[in-house]
Amino acid sequence: MQRTRISEIFSSDSPLGEVLVQGWVKTRRSSRAITFVQVNDGSTLRDLQVVVDEGNPAYPVANALSTGCSVSVTGEVVESQGKGQRFEIQARELQLVGGADPETYPLQKKRHTPEFLREIAHLRPRTNTFGAMARVRSAVAFAIHSFFRERGFQYIQTPIITASDAEGAGSMFRVTTLDLNNPPRREGSVDLGEDFFGRPTFLTVSGQLEAEIFALALSNVYTFGPTFRAENSNTSRHLAEFWMVEPEVAFCELDGLAELAEDFLKYIFGHVLENCDEDMQFFNRWYNEEIISTLKGIVDSRFERITYTEAVDMLLQSGESFEFPISWGVDLQSEHERYLTEKRIGRPVIVTDYPKEIKAFYMRLNDDDRTVGAMDVLAPGIGEIIGGSQREERGDVLLRRLRESGLNEEEYYWYLDLRNYGTVPHAGFGLGFERTVQFITGVSNIRDVIPFPRTPKNAEF
Amino acid sequence: MQRTRISEIFSSDSPLGEVLVQGWVKTRRSSRAITFVQVNDGSTLRDLQVVVDEGNPAYPVANALSTGCSVSVTGEVVESQGKGQRFEIQARELQLVGGADPETYPLQKKRHTPEFLREIAHLRPRTNTFGAMARVRSAVAFAIHSFFRERGFQYIQTPIITASDAEGAGSMFRVTTLDLNNPPRREGSVDLGEDFFGRPTFLTVSGQLEAEIFALALSNVYTFGPTFRAENSNTSRHLAEFWMVEPEVAFCELDGLAELAEDFLKYIFGHVLENCDEDMQFFNRWYNEEIISTLKGIVDSRFERITYTEAVDMLLQSGESFEFPISWGVDLQSEHERYLTEKRIGRPVIVTDYPKEIKAFYMRLNDDDRTVGAMDVLAPGIGEIIGGSQREERGDVLLRRLRESGLNEEEYYWYLDLRNYGTVPHAGFGLGFERTVQFITGVSNIRDVIPFPRTPKNAEF
Repeated sequence: MQRTRISEIFSSDSPLGEVLVQGWVKTRRSSRAITFVQVNDGSTLRDLQVVVDEGNPAYPVANALSTGCSVSVTGEVVESQGKGQRFEIQARELQLVGGADPETYPLQKKRHTPEFLREIAHLRPRTNTFGAMARVRSAVAFAIHSFFRERGFQYIQTPIITASDAEGAGSMFRVTTLDLNNPPRREGSVDLGEDFFGRPTFLTVSGQLEAEIFALALSNVYTFGPTFRAENSNTSRHLAEFWMVEPEVAFCELDGLAELAEDFLKYIFGHVLENCDEDMQFFNRWYNEEIISTLKGIVDSRFERITYTEAVDMLLQSGESFEFPISWGVDLQSEHERYLTEKRIGRPVIVTDYPKEIKAFYMRLNDDDRTVGAMDVLAPGIGEIIGGSQREERGDVLLRRLRESGLNEEEYYWYLDLRNYGTVPHAGFGLGFERTVQFITGVSNIRDVIPFPRTPKNAEF
Repeated sequence: MQRTRISEIFSSDSPLGEVLVQGWVKTRRSSRAITFVQVNDGSTLRDLQVVVDEGNPAYPVANALSTGCSVSVTGEVVESQGKGQRFEIQARELQLVGGADPETYPLQKKRHTPEFLREIAHLRPRTNTFGAMARVRSAVAFAIHSFFRERGFQYIQTPIITASDAEGAGSMFRVTTLDLNNPPRREGSVDLGEDFFGRPTFLTVSGQLEAEIFALALSNVYTFGPTFRAENSNTSRHLAEFWMVEPEVAFCELDGLAELAEDFLKYIFGHVLENCDEDMQFFNRWYNEEIISTLKGIVDSRFERITYTEAVDMLLQSGESFEFPISWGVDLQSEHERYLTEKRIGRPVIVTDYPKEIKAFYMRLNDDDRTVGAMDVLAPGIGEIIGGSQREERGDVLLRRLRESGLNEEEYYWYLDLRNYGTVPHAGFGLGFERTVQFITGVSNIRDVIPFPRTPKNAEF
């Protein structure tokens, strides 16, 4: 008999008849001559109630089930008398597949702290929160691919191991096969020419520069892959390993990019609201009571667009006392971003044209020679969710900016080549996948939105 | 005016009227009082012919265009008189956006060797081959996500940086932030406890073990991400960095897995044949004249299933003289696999139940105590394309196998926990993404199916 998923049973209009259900026991309670077993198979947040009568040969087995046991059940789907569930299953046969000793099984019927669950990250996917998280993550990932596919973007896998550095700064992880205890040396120093790739190599911090290569041939491309930061940041918003989405578009300027970012966020949020209602209700109930209305608000709103200079004026005139004083030329802090999007404007804001000193060398210099075509998307409840820019497409300007930034122009020969041969205006942005999932679910610690978080001193599992 | 993609112009039934087209010049030829410019924008393999008459103010600009220049053209789409193209565009305006000095631009109108193109991997996406490759890769990636999504699988991002080793062997890249020239030491050795994660860490060789964690909670999951091998293999089939797809299914045994693998390959190949006809015709013409018929053959065929023992018998009775002699207990070599699938059976073959000695510790031990529930899918023209197995779900057997393999059982405590708590039969396989793209396109060197290949002594771009 073919296995039926519990999600299929609940999404059917009428009882499905005789089915085979397989999953894990959430709870069991016995009441007089009946045992009720709540079974979950991960296809949905909802457990299926399995009813086993005393007369059933499987009754002793059912009556001894505990949280975490795996079971295989055949029986008839019927309308449920219990409240909160439409269908249940009257067991004909029930088999214990794998036990879970209640004396030692760490997941019991109670709330566990996120800290405890991180220690048992190999079992936490069996909890409601992490099951829902996995389904929402997967839906968001699919929405990302669908959005770009529908718009004719090609998905490009940019390299993870790299010899270049997209930001011209930032802490990177080294990748090596040298014997650390006894590395080859040359004139006293470790000879990295002897390393696997014949040169120093690192884990990528961004696929942007390589995505530009493909945008200047295929017009519309995006990356979606892991990126890395070797920063010793133990905060609820930082991971050493996280996934990033980076579209890059040829013949596109800052306005077009802002439009793409707005459409993109609305599409993803709309997709999750439409496809993950049950899981989102769960997050809304237990993690952030406003998250569904916030997401709906974003989908329905027109994003405001202001320049950095206008933003600074608004902040100066606000009368608020900020921890970090604001003035033209300093970067916006989280408190400033939240004031703008939450208090002042009340919906998402796209801030453009930042001072060149606080932005990367590859951002397009504006005619004022003071600002660059950068763009940050700020959303209520989270602050910055997307950062991007129009790229400097003029070879001479780029070369000057490279030199001003103290970068080695020879290492960027290929990046300059893109400007020397068939250059075009182009633009792109980056979206941190985990921060987006964090925002969508309302879960406060980023360690709890990724299967196995990588943070300083932690690479378990 | 909104940009129109060239693919839209060609896929329309009738001329689209006045459009704005932007792209890169493939070639230009001038004939009497007319200049013909072939423009490509990456949305399709096909170039759009732009016709500029002598009377047009832009004629001098058009007449000076060379390969690689970027242009912006407005004009009327009309039926083309030329052969091989249905539509062309009568330019009204034409602007040179970015030049490309023909004296130095490396891509000219001639065939370049793959070796030369690898050296200019930042420009090769502008060639027909690499444009087609990017589109096919993207289509295959999307087909992978769609296949699993349609079947209720959740996409899981397993970690890239890991402290465990899925194979219990294999060369791995170390990830470190230690100063190689002056690392902290403890009792003479480098103190890896001082490294970023407080322990030795490496780049993953497979997400399987972590995918099992999620399969034993969500039932149906898959990974799709980069994996790494620090092997000094300079062959046309090996990369140090490549992408892998790894589904993992709970309550699934070897038969169910074989069915999934067959459905999966047929779905992907069918998707490419249906959605990438133009690009596939190109590969069929220039790279492998049989590739379309081979793919169609696989989509239409029923995969044969034989055991390893039957395969060895077939090989022994074949009368062929193999470079590597065959006998029960040795692994199948490429020549054996190709004999079976190409000469003997003539269609894809799934070989199951290999000797335990030549397979990994986590594969399920069969009742004969000699073989394990392993599965390889062999396809004509390529050999092994998928490798997988049913996983050992019995805690005591797994522990014995771990010890026999000389692995440290304490490091695998969480993998054993999955068997101690709610264990279920489960199975999964791995598909190398680049080898699949190599097979689909008929391109012989794996360095030419990935944007930026990572191989020994090469991490350029």
